[in-house]
Amino acid sequence: MARVEKLSEADVTSRLPEVPGWEVTDGKLQRTFTFDNFVQAFGFMTRVALLAESMDHHPDWSNVYHRVTIGLNTHDVGGISQLDFELASKINHLMS
Amino acid sequence: MARVEKLSEADVTSRLPEVPGWEVTDGKLQRTFTFDNFVQAFGFMTRVALLAESMDHHPDWSNVYHRVTIGLNTHDVGGISQLDFELASKINHLMS
Repeated sequence: MARVEKLSEADVTSRLPEVPGWEVTDGKLQRTFTFDNFVQAFGFMTRVALLAESMDHHPDWSNVYHRVTIGLNTHDVGGISQLDFELASKINHLMS
Repeated sequence: MARVEKLSEADVTSRLPEVPGWEVTDGKLQRTFTFDNFVQAFGFMTRVALLAESMDHHPDWSNVYHRVTIGLNTHDVGGISQLDFELASKINHLMS
């Protein structure tokens, strides 16, 4: 795997339009998804889990009934990296 | 379904020994489970999701890599009820 580097704040800001719906909160890329019910929310989480495992890059996330909040950062570099944008983009594609 | 009632603080405290590992935090029954890796943690979450859906009683929970934190309360009664103890007990049995 290519070396992963922490993106500067300016880089993160300029790249946010690549991942509609995501914003920077507490140093993470974050987005909340709302579904009709728990089954739909957890079905979505299962798809994200498989994506995350295949990338070996995992979210910090929470779920309350029909709502899933996902936070992405890269612990190894102490910030947001290219990997986070890749995973955010793939998660967005799950929804499209 | 029998009517669900909010348990008093005294009732909750006296019943905590029924669900080893759980404590009361922010008005919820809460326990954190730690696994070897993400696959094990998410596998556990899947089993809990099926339990929760079958009970129509869902957790507030979060996951960071190998760690899963589960909070249980009953929104309809604004506190901890018998349902929370039932789900906590069933989750403990998943681990045994």
